[in-house]
Amino acid sequence: MSFTHLDKSGDIAMVDVSGKPGTLRVARASGFILMQPETIERLSLDGFPKGNVLTTAKLAGILAAKNTAHLIPLCHQLNLSWADIVFDVRKERIVIVATVKTREATGVEMEALTAVSVAALTIYDMCKAVDKSMEIGSIKLETKTGGKSSVTEGYR
Amino acid sequence: MSFTHLDKSGDIAMVDVSGKPGTLRVARASGFILMQPETIERLSLDGFPKGNVLTTAKLAGILAAKNTAHLIPLCHQLNLSWADIVFDVRKERIVIVATVKTREATGVEMEALTAVSVAALTIYDMCKAVDKSMEIGSIKLETKTGGKSSVTEGYR
Amino acid sequence: MSFTHLDKSGDIAMVDVSGKPGTLRVARASGFILMQPETIERLSLDGFPKGNVLTTAKLAGILAAKNTAHLIPLCHQLNLSWADIVFDVRKERIVIVATVKTREATGVEMEALTAVSVAALTIYDMCKAVDKSMEIGSIKLETKTGGKSSVTEGYR
Amino acid sequence: MSFTHLDKSGDIAMVDVSGKPGTLRVARASGFILMQPETIERLSLDGFPKGNVLTTAKLAGILAAKNTAHLIPLCHQLNLSWADIVFDVRKERIVIVATVKTREATGVEMEALTAVSVAALTIYDMCKAVDKSMEIGSIKLETKTGGKSSVTEGYR
Amino acid sequence: MSFTHLDKSGDIAMVDVSGKPGTLRVARASGFILMQPETIERLSLDGFPKGNVLTTAKLAGILAAKNTAHLIPLCHQLNLSWADIVFDVRKERIVIVATVKTREATGVEMEALTAVSVAALTIYDMCKAVDKSMEIGSIKLETKTGGKSSVTEGYR
Amino acid sequence: MSFTHLDKSGDIAMVDVSGKPGTLRVARASGFILMQPETIERLSLDGFPKGNVLTTAKLAGILAAKNTAHLIPLCHQLNLSWADIVFDVRKERIVIVATVKTREATGVEMEALTAVSVAALTIYDMCKAVDKSMEIGSIKLETKTGGKSSVTEGYR
Repeated sequence: MSFTHLDKSGDIAMVDVSGKPGTLRVARASGFILMQPETIERLSLDGFPKGNVLTTAKLAGILAAKNTAHLIPLCHQLNLSWADIVFDVRKERIVIVATVKTREATGVEMEALTAVSVAALTIYDMCKAVDKSMEIGSIKLETKTGGKSSVTEGYR
Repeated sequence: MSFTHLDKSGDIAMVDVSGKPGTLRVARASGFILMQPETIERLSLDGFPKGNVLTTAKLAGILAAKNTAHLIPLCHQLNLSWADIVFDVRKERIVIVATVKTREATGVEMEALTAVSVAALTIYDMCKAVDKSMEIGSIKLETKTGGKSSVTEGYR
Repeated sequence: MSFTHLDKSGDIAMVDVSGKPGTLRVARASGFILMQPETIERLSLDGFPKGNVLTTAKLAGILAAKNTAHLIPLCHQLNLSWADIVFDVRKERIVIVATVKTREATGVEMEALTAVSVAALTIYDMCKAVDKSMEIGSIKLETKTGGKSSVTEGYR
Repeated sequence: MSFTHLDKSGDIAMVDVSGKPGTLRVARASGFILMQPETIERLSLDGFPKGNVLTTAKLAGILAAKNTAHLIPLCHQLNLSWADIVFDVRKERIVIVATVKTREATGVEMEALTAVSVAALTIYDMCKAVDKSMEIGSIKLETKTGGKSSVTEGYR
Repeated sequence: MSFTHLDKSGDIAMVDVSGKPGTLRVARASGFILMQPETIERLSLDGFPKGNVLTTAKLAGILAAKNTAHLIPLCHQLNLSWADIVFDVRKERIVIVATVKTREATGVEMEALTAVSVAALTIYDMCKAVDKSMEIGSIKLETKTGGKSSVTEGYR
Repeated sequence: MSFTHLDKSGDIAMVDVSGKPGTLRVARASGFILMQPETIERLSLDGFPKGNVLTTAKLAGILAAKNTAHLIPLCHQLNLSWADIVFDVRKERIVIVATVKTREATGVEMEALTAVSVAALTIYDMCKAVDKSMEIGSIKLETKTGGKSSVTEGYR
């Protein structure tokens, strides 16, 4: 197996997908943002706008997924059939899971990873005035289906 | 201290910086991408294009730093005086450190964090054909100077 | 019938179109910009550059139509087969009609409405030095064909 | 008074603001979206996600305000100090008011008008599955301060 | 043969490609940047970062190719299957050749020409501190295949 | 004199302009597009839309000038005070001259060169159905004032 984005002379290269069929492809990625428990408690208080922080993060993540090919230089443009992000708010972290679908000729793992990353950055931005020690972690691919390589789980 | 991006009724809100002076502001953020040691070895072999993977990641990170206000919904537009990214290639991870400067009216921590995130995603993209278990981790602010709150180090 | 952009728990959601076929879909939207009659007269004088104001508005509207999925957060990316804008210059208003076609899996009404809106804003921008009382109005969908719901006319 | 965006030969032209000082400039624009009363009722029901529709519209409007110079061809790039949008939900319409501030060398009325337009389009997008007769109307400048021409109110 | 981007009344117009099939289409364009021989020598010295200037130019060109429909107003959006750029470093010029493929309904010559142009501009940017007399020249289409008109060579 | 975009180890680098004052800076660049004389004649016929082709090219060039920092990876973001493009239609070529001004901390030659390049590409796009042999040539900096290095003319 070789680096698909580097040609034989070691130069960067985009992968030629002109011979690949468009089929349903799905990817799911996850990550989390560590926060002070008090920050999360404040986000969760009745009447407090947790929904708005997470809604903002979700929208930013979806917009970023659609913009992936302009952020990651060698990614292909892919019109997404669906992009979704769900959050699991725990005691000291918010877990972020993004799922992306396309019917085009190459996989959407970078779109899912980008959605998670930008959603996490948006939570960071909205909470940074009250929490100086946040940390974004463990962004990884969970599953990928469609195309020739279906990965069901990372092994770290 | 309160959530600056939420107004009193809990609605989202951009912070009004029209009364803040433009001064030199610097932020440094870091993160890493975990990779199989063999992937990193292959990147480091003589004649192998490690430079190209990292050059691509650096350019993507710098471009993303300049694009932060269009990725993170409530971030202010800031014309950057400088954005730089350095990499520390270790046995099983590549550490990424981004430094960003501006002379505008608000801080650049989100630009530094975005640069790290997109540089990491770009490395992921370029190596994903040979390594299915990469993971992006520990993205955090290292230091921030200028403006009223100078943070010297995170405390996790 | 339910809000397609909100899931059962009331959260925002993009519609999953991965099961919808790509077919020819057309949408036409309209709107107008009210202007002082003297402003429109000046635009219409022989040798006066009406064409240039409207050409600028048309280009801005077409570019915006192609950019819709990055402006409207939950819109799908659609490669447009055609986008066109025509203007009807009347005594105290310019009527704007945009028609958009695609062969992708979901409708293009938002693209047509966005084209009208940005064309109107561009006329506003180019005339605002001579007319302080312009108003953009009545932006609505005229017709939509293709897909399961073909609407022939709004009923306000 | 003459068309600032057209030079003497009638050609389009950007206004040269290199001799204008950067000072605080504020603009406020408004508009509304007409909807079926039942649509608005459904949006307002207890537990229903009105907040999410309006939060999405607000974020889209703020992002668009920051992107105005790339949407309206002859607009200057302006780093905004603040952009805000408030909604007034009435029986058969949602009124949208956007306020934008900058400290740069030219006014921000186009940014405010763009924020209103894109917020309205976003509400349209999120409700179009349940209401086929929406109409966006009456987008206009309310007030503009700073610079040489301070307009306090439109006169239609 | 007529101007496809102008309708019968001389107005600008996007071409309607809704009736054209998606097939494999390839275009190759070239151009060069003239530089002082000493500038090129310095780029070519052992240990000198020629690779990085050209890698940067290549990435910028590929990103621009993917962004063509947002730069050239009447171009169609096309998801590219592949975009590649190669450089031929000569005594006093660097020749740039870009190849682009798509499987969509219209040709990719503008994408190839845009890739060459932005790659050349990027080399200019990176070398302008040491060479004040660079010049970008001879940007033209080399070949185009697929669709009804296959051009094998320009005739200037 | 050294390559400002490469640090001592040969790595790419953005120039740090945080210590440079914002002053008036102007750059003028030129280039041309060679066309068949008959193509230009057709563009010039009475009633023919030369104005529209050139208006489209001018708008595309101005929009691109404002977007330069997102096209050329190591360019600084600069809010432009003015960007203008003029055309000189000759027997077998259209000469394009772009002038750009800013009051920020670094020069605008890349913005002027980008404006010329994208204006030329837009003319190419609009005429390519009738002329298969166009060629874009001789894109270079004419003058640059402000900052420490004022260049009055290239010397090729």
